[in-house]
Amino acid sequence: MEKITSVHNQHVKDWKKLQTRKERQKTNTYLLDGWHLVNEAIASQVSILTLIGTQEQFELHPDILTHGFETYEVTKEIMTDITDSVTPQGIAAVVEKPKDDLEIPTKLTGAWLLLDQIQDPGNIGTMVRTADAAGFVGVVAGRKTADLYSPKVVRSMQGSQFHLQLRQGNLFSWLNQFRQAALPVYGTELNQDAKSFREVESADDFALIMGNEGHGMQPELLQQTTQNLYIPMAGKAESLNVAVSAGILMFQLKQK
Amino acid sequence: MEKITSVHNQHVKDWKKLQTRKERQKTNTYLLDGWHLVNEAIASQVSILTLIGTQEQFELHPDILTHGFETYEVTKEIMTDITDSVTPQGIAAVVEKPKDDLEIPTKLTGAWLLLDQIQDPGNIGTMVRTADAAGFVGVVAGRKTADLYSPKVVRSMQGSQFHLQLRQGNLFSWLNQFRQAALPVYGTELNQDAKSFREVESADDFALIMGNEGHGMQPELLQQTTQNLYIPMAGKAESLNVAVSAGILMFQLKQK
Repeated sequence: MEKITSVHNQHVKDWKKLQTRKERQKTNTYLLDGWHLVNEAIASQVSILTLIGTQEQFELHPDILTHGFETYEVTKEIMTDITDSVTPQGIAAVVEKPKDDLEIPTKLTGAWLLLDQIQDPGNIGTMVRTADAAGFVGVVAGRKTADLYSPKVVRSMQGSQFHLQLRQGNLFSWLNQFRQAALPVYGTELNQDAKSFREVESADDFALIMGNEGHGMQPELLQQTTQNLYIPMAGKAESLNVAVSAGILMFQLKQK
Repeated sequence: MEKITSVHNQHVKDWKKLQTRKERQKTNTYLLDGWHLVNEAIASQVSILTLIGTQEQFELHPDILTHGFETYEVTKEIMTDITDSVTPQGIAAVVEKPKDDLEIPTKLTGAWLLLDQIQDPGNIGTMVRTADAAGFVGVVAGRKTADLYSPKVVRSMQGSQFHLQLRQGNLFSWLNQFRQAALPVYGTELNQDAKSFREVESADDFALIMGNEGHGMQPELLQQTTQNLYIPMAGKAESLNVAVSAGILMFQLKQK
């Protein structure tokens, strides 16, 4: 186990660079910050490329050293430097992003959540976590959706990325693939031209698309869905938070 | 209209102090930041005690000056100082908190959301906004729930506080009142000892209690409910965000 005490060490610089989308794409890796995420990765048999911890944490949890991961002991200062967190727990890991995440499965089954131009990292992470809880098999980020592996998204996914398939790509291509598989694709609209979500039967295999926080789904995408849904709202409320809407819809559409 | 250019002006100091719970309690007022909230307050006929804006905003929107509110023109620097926002829009207002918000209505009707020790301001605001959209008549913050009128909660409520009743108090007293009115009170649990939320009939008059993000509801409160509910989760997911859970439950329990 190598010990690093300087924030100017090249490894430290490389880990810190994983806060940028560019570096994550270049290396096809991202950083997990904190025990919950590191333990989830180990439990899900995701391969840990590098384990990074403080002396204090390695002394408190010596078991983590028995896995044989490439391991570095660092100072608390370095930990604060490489993570996006104000009070890091003192444990982190570099892991690989899924290798096939730009491909569309040739045989589509299960429930999928498609994200069209979602911007807020917290919303994205919460939706992935909710999709996991609702039994969805995958989440697809469309081209203009914020990156799935930024520190803020990773923090709010809480490890759910290890329980389902996270993919990225052109949502129009995904829609084509669902159409070819004869599976329904549900869009979401903010107006009552769409169908109430309560009138849709729950199913096992389908896609649900959530749109941008301010503008909703792209009109061109709305035109290509099987059916567009809305959530009837009472009184004077104007809209729901997109992650709350996604939760209501996912737990209605998939009830097993 | 008085013009203020110094951040040391006493009015400026007083407005800034409204960022603290203590000052909001002392004055029974709070601050609205931005056009959406100010316009919602006006549309909801909430009395605006003081209107605060920059020269630029008053020139762009002269209509706002026709209401006869006590009005102050301030600099952008002052606006940044008094609001909790990095890029304030240049309009704000001091409004009164509801006067009767510590009382329990003698005749309880409608759907109520009770918040037991919820800590995150964003979660609280999102739940109030969702309750509004679901047609709930009120939200009650229990003793250890974060303040309903902090800048962050106010921002994420998005004006929904003007569409329903926001109250604060002892949740055990509220439960008693619901019991006396023979209305059901649904608690929420993270385990399967409770009843699946799908097995509950929707209704018009009831209370739903959401608990702390980490620890859930107080055990003593769980024991006094009519029925405790849980949301069945698939696979390896451990929990849902409390605001997402609240959305799923509210739209299931109240379907009109």
